[in-house]
Amino acid sequence: MNQFSLDPQLAADCHILGEMGCCLLLLMNNSLAPWFILVPQRNETEICDLPREDQLAVLDCINLLSRFLKSHFKVDKLNVAAIGNVVSQLHIHIVARRRDDFCWPGVVWGRKERQPYDEETVEQLTSALAAAMPSRFSPRSRHGNP
Amino acid sequence: MNQFSLDPQLAADCHILGEMGCCLLLLMNNSLAPWFILVPQRNETEICDLPREDQLAVLDCINLLSRFLKSHFKVDKLNVAAIGNVVSQLHIHIVARRRDDFCWPGVVWGRKERQPYDEETVEQLTSALAAAMPSRFSPRSRHGNP
Repeated sequence: MNQFSLDPQLAADCHILGEMGCCLLLLMNNSLAPWFILVPQRNETEICDLPREDQLAVLDCINLLSRFLKSHFKVDKLNVAAIGNVVSQLHIHIVARRRDDFCWPGVVWGRKERQPYDEETVEQLTSALAAAMPSRFSPRSRHGNP
Repeated sequence: MNQFSLDPQLAADCHILGEMGCCLLLLMNNSLAPWFILVPQRNETEICDLPREDQLAVLDCINLLSRFLKSHFKVDKLNVAAIGNVVSQLHIHIVARRRDDFCWPGVVWGRKERQPYDEETVEQLTSALAAAMPSRFSPRSRHGNP
């Protein structure tokens, strides 16, 4: 198996919050909706091609993150999607949608609106994730030594 | 638990092909892309709220259907998504996307283009599904007695 490395487009578009089980946990750098992305550290591009144990590990991450979003934000509907038309590396969007958000009831993909996060909000979110799932989420230091 | 009944909007937009495990299998009535929908016959609206055994059953259906699409169509990427902003009843889109399809690399949701299927193609697809997974897919008769 080739070594995993995060797709450069995902790295450019997102904050890397940390690791969650077998996945990297990213936050799309757009505060218009709570928009998280799970990236299994695997080289398959389709869920159906993952080995069963990896599928179950990803499902666990989806469950944990979904429940965190429901507890931490007002959520009218979660949008959970593996698309990958632009970035083929397998990644699963989990977006907390509200009836009054910027593009309800449309989908967030393909929209141009952007409002980057401030650093403090990203750190608060990371801390909240770490507090909610101390044994499952490992924050990535945002100010580590080089 | 309340009895399950298919959301009227899904029923209006799709052909009901049959049952696949715990799910109804629908075909979006738009031949511009092979666009299938799995509807778990449950009343939860989020994947994370399904009991574990139902989650695993849905995952099995996603795997089976994904592999069928990869074998039956030219597929550059599968789009697998539970959205539900318009129809909250839990349903999972599985769309076989090609680089030359009508809206690549955009997503299919929210697009207005439509090209309904002819009856023969729907019957052929249903037969192909039944042949590919005889023990897992039960076609619904399209010409049964009332």
